[in-house]
Amino acid sequence: MAETMLTNRNQGIFKGKVFLVNPKHEEILSEKCYSSLSAVPSWVETIVIAIPALSVPQVIEEAGNSGTKAAIVISSGFAEIGNRELEEKLLSVARKCDVRIIGPNCLGIYDAYTGMDTLFLPEVKYLSDGREVVATPRPKAGSITLLTQSGAFGAAALDYMAGHAMGIRCFVSYGNRCDVAEDELLEYFGHDERTKVVLLYVEGLTRGRGLIERAKDTVRRKPIVALKAGRTQAGTRAAASHTGALAGSDKVYEGAFRQAGIIRARNVEEFFDFARAFALQPPGQTKSIAILTNAGGPGIMAADALEESGLDVRPLSEQTLAKFSEFKAKGLLLPIVSGHNPIDLTAEATSAMYQLALSTLLDDPEIGGVVLFVQHHAPTILDDVVDPVANTVERHGKPVTVCDMGGAEMAQAMRQAFEKRGLPSYSMPERAARSLWALVNYGSYLKQHGPMEHGSKNERPEGDPQREPQKSRIFPAEDRG
Amino acid sequence: MAETMLTNRNQGIFKGKVFLVNPKHEEILSEKCYSSLSAVPSWVETIVIAIPALSVPQVIEEAGNSGTKAAIVISSGFAEIGNRELEEKLLSVARKCDVRIIGPNCLGIYDAYTGMDTLFLPEVKYLSDGREVVATPRPKAGSITLLTQSGAFGAAALDYMAGHAMGIRCFVSYGNRCDVAEDELLEYFGHDERTKVVLLYVEGLTRGRGLIERAKDTVRRKPIVALKAGRTQAGTRAAASHTGALAGSDKVYEGAFRQAGIIRARNVEEFFDFARAFALQPPGQTKSIAILTNAGGPGIMAADALEESGLDVRPLSEQTLAKFSEFKAKGLLLPIVSGHNPIDLTAEATSAMYQLALSTLLDDPEIGGVVLFVQHHAPTILDDVVDPVANTVERHGKPVTVCDMGGAEMAQAMRQAFEKRGLPSYSMPERAARSLWALVNYGSYLKQHGPMEHGSKNERPEGDPQREPQKSRIFPAEDRG
Repeated sequence: MAETMLTNRNQGIFKGKVFLVNPKHEEILSEKCYSSLSAVPSWVETIVIAIPALSVPQVIEEAGNSGTKAAIVISSGFAEIGNRELEEKLLSVARKCDVRIIGPNCLGIYDAYTGMDTLFLPEVKYLSDGREVVATPRPKAGSITLLTQSGAFGAAALDYMAGHAMGIRCFVSYGNRCDVAEDELLEYFGHDERTKVVLLYVEGLTRGRGLIERAKDTVRRKPIVALKAGRTQAGTRAAASHTGALAGSDKVYEGAFRQAGIIRARNVEEFFDFARAFALQPPGQTKSIAILTNAGGPGIMAADALEESGLDVRPLSEQTLAKFSEFKAKGLLLPIVSGHNPIDLTAEATSAMYQLALSTLLDDPEIGGVVLFVQHHAPTILDDVVDPVANTVERHGKPVTVCDMGGAEMAQAMRQAFEKRGLPSYSMPERAARSLWALVNYGSYLKQHGPMEHGSKNERPEGDPQREPQKSRIFPAEDRG
Repeated sequence: MAETMLTNRNQGIFKGKVFLVNPKHEEILSEKCYSSLSAVPSWVETIVIAIPALSVPQVIEEAGNSGTKAAIVISSGFAEIGNRELEEKLLSVARKCDVRIIGPNCLGIYDAYTGMDTLFLPEVKYLSDGREVVATPRPKAGSITLLTQSGAFGAAALDYMAGHAMGIRCFVSYGNRCDVAEDELLEYFGHDERTKVVLLYVEGLTRGRGLIERAKDTVRRKPIVALKAGRTQAGTRAAASHTGALAGSDKVYEGAFRQAGIIRARNVEEFFDFARAFALQPPGQTKSIAILTNAGGPGIMAADALEESGLDVRPLSEQTLAKFSEFKAKGLLLPIVSGHNPIDLTAEATSAMYQLALSTLLDDPEIGGVVLFVQHHAPTILDDVVDPVANTVERHGKPVTVCDMGGAEMAQAMRQAFEKRGLPSYSMPERAARSLWALVNYGSYLKQHGPMEHGSKNERPEGDPQREPQKSRIFPAEDRG
């Protein structure tokens, strides 16, 4: 942790000052250590604490008395192992001397833009064959903010996102959340201009009502995707045992999430898939979806997944059908292309056919979005299909998700090329379909509850002009839920 | 196609002879071309046909008359575009002259052991930046056989398997299946010693009853995993439009699959995940499952997924609880390890703790299998945990699936290390849980219907001693369904 902060400072990524405090060492990592907080020759804004639990309240008091406003308490040994009194003492000391706390029992913060990085897990490790491998990577800078109760889940999430080229805005592992909890974090990142979508991993909530009220407000600005573990009896029992708090009935969460417009992921993979979609595509306005493909099978599976999620995959309108007939008559589309939905351009589809068909579908006012399959195995498909498709999507402002099934070089290159042009791309039909569902589901909520003006093609939740983003703040005390 | 066959022959991978027949060229790829089949100076066992549809029946007749026994008809332009009469003619000619047909309208066969490879899709392509990329790769040799009605799905499946280091035994894309259909393919690969698990992708069946009868027999030898597209109204309509045949009610398929002991995957990802599990682990005997983890969150999500699939995640038995208490008293496990299920060894878990806890769980006769989480982000975890875990699993003969969530270097290295030792490893909790479900589901079917003797720790379906594997045959005519 100290190492990462020092490296980030030395490389000019972290612009602030870093002081090490440790009474047992004069130097750590060639950096001077101060024997106590009061020896530090500067006002300290934020203190990161990783010392035995029993000593934490005293350090908080010392910090508060010298004007420190925020503390990230990495230390464990509080409520999570039954030491509730110690945690209450920590909180009461913090309130008394006006210090806000993230934690305890957490990984803290990784901010991809400021270089603030309190993660203490080893970034690289050595395998038994001598190889040095990245163990806990940091994803590249992006627009996804991840809030997680569980540190272990958080580390795995960073690892997944880094390995799948997803960009992060900020990571907050808040652990026991004795002070700052989900509600304030949502409030803060709701107003953060760099955050396009908030991911929230929870096992149980302590201030559920406050969270839901804050979420309602945040959701009007940007989507929140929640992953709530503990749906079944066994899962709920496990969650209760893990967090110490009662996990509560899953139906209560389900209802509250729906009421607040929070999109719930069914599993971990969806959690990230939805984030990828929201980071790149606008919400949908209409639940009737078209599927455009050059491979029959994957299209069918997408139709299943869309319909099972509550979206419609209807045959095309008369008007659009007539256009397709005209294109076929002119030789612009193959005669065997069917007017049903999915629309199968067949394995002979070219870039021009994709562009024409996609544009026609997105022109149809009844169609709210498209799941697009571009299976690159067909001899006619090269990456020159990406630009015309992406330009067409941009012009229309309706959500589109892409699938190219496969795991080897060209599949990866195609998906990367689509993503670079703003099209979220998946290796599985069902994942592309479910991600489009998330976009439409969010759009429907905004239509009913949002303050956005409708009618503009490019409307996006983050474009809400009626509310000015608040100044960046470190969770001030008056916002306490 | 010709290129791959010639390369495989030149490299000594394909041990047979290859003759090119094309009346328009004297040479293709520096290899002599014969002007007609009758000009080939050797008996031809199998003929691969990729010529215009109208000429195919005549070539089949010519081949049959000179003693050829099998034909793979790549050519399209038959029933799939409405030319049913031509397809009927093809079949009647083939029957008359005793030639068995795979296809038409298919990719044909890739046999990883003999080098037989009729795939005509470009193996490499060039991106617009000049990069040469593998477009349609061949997976390494392994024990998974994939049968697919859809060629496009087949190509994507090979691509996925290659990219995810899954080994293939044989790939058959059978297209319109005018002659050889799923039933005979199941019969053949049911007796194939190299095949440990059969994957079957279907959109609709024409000889469903025959298939189910054959499957019942095959399933007693080895698991069959089916992916049936077209579950919903939209999906069924799409499937009907794609294959030309009626896709039929999904409930009928569901019932038939269950009756035959075929494991049905809910989506494409499960299709491959289950294959990975069956290729490496034995079926389960008992539906009570333990979850062992060093990270709370993922364990909870696995508990949810197991219980939702119909398995039990019960608190541990008194006997096993007592053993855990003893280990804690001796300092072999941490005092905070809970006796609930999931069993959370915490982020301080070591290899020795894993081995001890896993062995104790697998010793419990009430526990039918374990979902094991080894999140490598914890400072104590290195790849030295793999061998003790794998040895413990081998000794017990109960199914275990592994999860290490993450997408970067060490996550991949850990999963590879586990797989090398026979433990199917996943990046998502739910996928590890569902794959264990598939193993237990199959085991339950075998318990009720199978000819295996029970009681042996290492019983596996392919170890069925009561039936000798049949000699390898190319789908002889008397087996026609």
